[in-house]
Amino acid sequence: MAQPVLPVALERGSGISLVAQLANGVRGLVSARAIEPGARVPSIRALGADLGVARAVVEQAYDQLIAEGWLIARRGAGTYVAEVGRLQVATVPAGRDAAPADETTAGRVRMDTGTPWMDPRHDAGWRRAWREVSAARIPRGYPDAAGIPELRAELAGYVSRTRGLSCRPDEVLVTSGITHGLALLLDVLDPGAVAIEDPGYRAAVATVEQSGRPVLDVAVDSEGLDVAALRSSPAAVRAVYVTPAHQHPLGITMSAGRRIALLSEATRRGALVVEDDYDSEFRYDVAPLPALAALDRDRVIHLGSASKSVHPGLRLGWLVGPAAVVAAVAARRGARHDHPPWPVQLAFLSMLRAGHVDRLVRSARRVYADRSRLVVQALSSYGDIGSPPAGMYLTLPLPGPVADSVRAQCWQRGFDIPSLEFYSRTSGRTGLVIGFGGLTDEELSRALDVLTAALDRERLAVQPTQLDDVRDDEPDPLLARAYSSP
Amino acid sequence: MAQPVLPVALERGSGISLVAQLANGVRGLVSARAIEPGARVPSIRALGADLGVARAVVEQAYDQLIAEGWLIARRGAGTYVAEVGRLQVATVPAGRDAAPADETTAGRVRMDTGTPWMDPRHDAGWRRAWREVSAARIPRGYPDAAGIPELRAELAGYVSRTRGLSCRPDEVLVTSGITHGLALLLDVLDPGAVAIEDPGYRAAVATVEQSGRPVLDVAVDSEGLDVAALRSSPAAVRAVYVTPAHQHPLGITMSAGRRIALLSEATRRGALVVEDDYDSEFRYDVAPLPALAALDRDRVIHLGSASKSVHPGLRLGWLVGPAAVVAAVAARRGARHDHPPWPVQLAFLSMLRAGHVDRLVRSARRVYADRSRLVVQALSSYGDIGSPPAGMYLTLPLPGPVADSVRAQCWQRGFDIPSLEFYSRTSGRTGLVIGFGGLTDEELSRALDVLTAALDRERLAVQPTQLDDVRDDEPDPLLARAYSSP
Repeated sequence: MAQPVLPVALERGSGISLVAQLANGVRGLVSARAIEPGARVPSIRALGADLGVARAVVEQAYDQLIAEGWLIARRGAGTYVAEVGRLQVATVPAGRDAAPADETTAGRVRMDTGTPWMDPRHDAGWRRAWREVSAARIPRGYPDAAGIPELRAELAGYVSRTRGLSCRPDEVLVTSGITHGLALLLDVLDPGAVAIEDPGYRAAVATVEQSGRPVLDVAVDSEGLDVAALRSSPAAVRAVYVTPAHQHPLGITMSAGRRIALLSEATRRGALVVEDDYDSEFRYDVAPLPALAALDRDRVIHLGSASKSVHPGLRLGWLVGPAAVVAAVAARRGARHDHPPWPVQLAFLSMLRAGHVDRLVRSARRVYADRSRLVVQALSSYGDIGSPPAGMYLTLPLPGPVADSVRAQCWQRGFDIPSLEFYSRTSGRTGLVIGFGGLTDEELSRALDVLTAALDRERLAVQPTQLDDVRDDEPDPLLARAYSSP
Repeated sequence: MAQPVLPVALERGSGISLVAQLANGVRGLVSARAIEPGARVPSIRALGADLGVARAVVEQAYDQLIAEGWLIARRGAGTYVAEVGRLQVATVPAGRDAAPADETTAGRVRMDTGTPWMDPRHDAGWRRAWREVSAARIPRGYPDAAGIPELRAELAGYVSRTRGLSCRPDEVLVTSGITHGLALLLDVLDPGAVAIEDPGYRAAVATVEQSGRPVLDVAVDSEGLDVAALRSSPAAVRAVYVTPAHQHPLGITMSAGRRIALLSEATRRGALVVEDDYDSEFRYDVAPLPALAALDRDRVIHLGSASKSVHPGLRLGWLVGPAAVVAAVAARRGARHDHPPWPVQLAFLSMLRAGHVDRLVRSARRVYADRSRLVVQALSSYGDIGSPPAGMYLTLPLPGPVADSVRAQCWQRGFDIPSLEFYSRTSGRTGLVIGFGGLTDEELSRALDVLTAALDRERLAVQPTQLDDVRDDEPDPLLARAYSSP
């Protein structure tokens, strides 16, 4: 196969890292269509040799571009420019909390997993909070490095009430969201790897990688993170990052047995557990399981966020942990002025006190339950969509090429649906992740029509080979391609 | 001298770094008065041996505590618990942008260098901005990783108009302040040290240290950073951080010749220059010198902040640099959701558009000019206070023990004045840094009375030894103690 050399100019000593220069160069070529979608990019080895840089430079640049969605890695088959044309440009990063629409998404409905539904009947609560900021006495100087005291106290009550995690205000630190909490925590931990669910939350992976720590990918099974796989890893693991309430992106609730096993393995290793409590508010059927942190207050650092309950643009979250950890994090971030803005803290305090957050969550929970039912009804005949009784997305496993083709068809028809492959690092899982939070009822209904039509076309395309007949002896060529490994 | 052993318990494998545990332990002992102010703490070697940890662990913990103001290092004479009792607790970090008053400062007036004066006549502009946030259409999803486009465009105009730095919106990135801009930039640079002015801005030093890069301390003379000293350093320097408009904390404006020399040295080394444009708005006499970045757009990354012009609790700043750098920074931070909150961006946009920022700056500039004159009049007979025609603080050089004693006296009488030693890493400069932004006219007037009274007492105390007589042969004991080196 031809290995085109990429026309990227690197300048040593410019002060910009070679990785960043190379990633910028490739991004420019792809976005200018100088490399066509679907084209294979040079191997890491070939490009490294051609540019005269270490393979690690190319590898890091490719990883970054894959994370951003410009490139796609096909296991054992090289790296390609994202096949769906400009789609990936629009979905950078196409993760659970993807970037906002830009020109290239214009007119398309993003079905990402990170944009919540906000009940317009409750806009008044949001507006009132900012009017309170407007009217507040303007304090002197910087806010408290751990967060404004009134908000820490209010959050301690909120976390205790909603998550069964009783804590004192000095065990709460106000953050700018889950990833910020994770970064602050990593900042005070001894060196060592961070184990993360695979498939998992891309922004958490990026946060760990940017901290300079190795990432240990650990598989997920029907009960959550595969603790046996973690146990067998020789890596020096300092922390284990999990989404126990609602695994991202598979939707699994970590079983009680698995929680105990995880804590015991973490204890054995002297590692912390970081609980990303993402989405826990949105359990439809019963009260959510208590936070994992409630089982072991010393071992588990609990991270919460207002991104899903209120708004991702608020950049407001919290970390709950031992008071000594909170103090260490606060001292360290205070020294570099990494404080959440006080107007934002004050607005969120006002929203909590006025019951705005609770109202939004209750409304959204009902909407998500209804929408989830609709999606399951429409799609369950196409694959094992499951029906986790929580959250704002569902995952439909599909062979990779089928998922790619369905995505492309939906894109043509105005819907931008993330690929499960995007969240997989080594798991090999493929399919579609269908976020149903950030759209209207009408958009969702149209999206399901478009999706089922595309899935039907794929089913017809596969029909002639008689799937059932070949399943156990010779593989269906379409499916085989998707599941082949190096 | 007795070496008391510190009763600090360290737990290995707890997941919390030994450095953080040790720092927390010592902080607890000091704040609980288990170690008395003025007491010498064990040497790094002794405590390391006692606790069975590496010397580097103790050294880092001590450095952190010194940076936070709990401990004081006396050159060649060991490390001590801050002598002025609970003073240092209140001034953590006692830097240019010090932490807010807590219980222990209650009733005292902080004369830090980071709390600006805000004209109460302009409160309406602040309030209007937040009302606009309250009324704004609530957008979907995350804000743009580089900042909301309208704000980037407005900032490009603002920087061009006020700093002679003409730039396009794609060369502007919205940050959460100067240190955040610095951290984001360091995140995309190749490994290497960062050279910083000494004395210099402590939060910048903390930011560089927390990034894991070495800090190279470079002296400052009457023209600004000593480029000859930088030139003679063999360190692999990746970036040079400077405050050319108004050196922090000495107040010097970097001369034009020194600017050229700095750029040429940075070019020779392939290093970037990071321009912290702190305080540039507050030049009293003439328009401020154009930004250093205007001389070399590729070499200099310009950092600005609304912390002094509007409010430090806003956490809003900007980075101006080549579009490729802005894009690289935005991609990297976007992947971990490190976006400034959109309500804050929107509020600041509204303040810029409505002329609120300009009005605040104009008012504050007049107030600072008047206050600066008062301070110079009151204090110029006590030392070379200089009179930089800009900013919200002045620096009075004094022998270390004199400065300590004057600080303690002022503290007793209700004023919390930072020490120049706090900003010095290797420079050995001692004195007082007198911030006059964050207080009322009455408070300033009282502060000057208290200060001059304390200085007079010190002068009387020194009188008997006839300072002038001993200056050239045998050192005055008081002064000698301050200037002694190991």
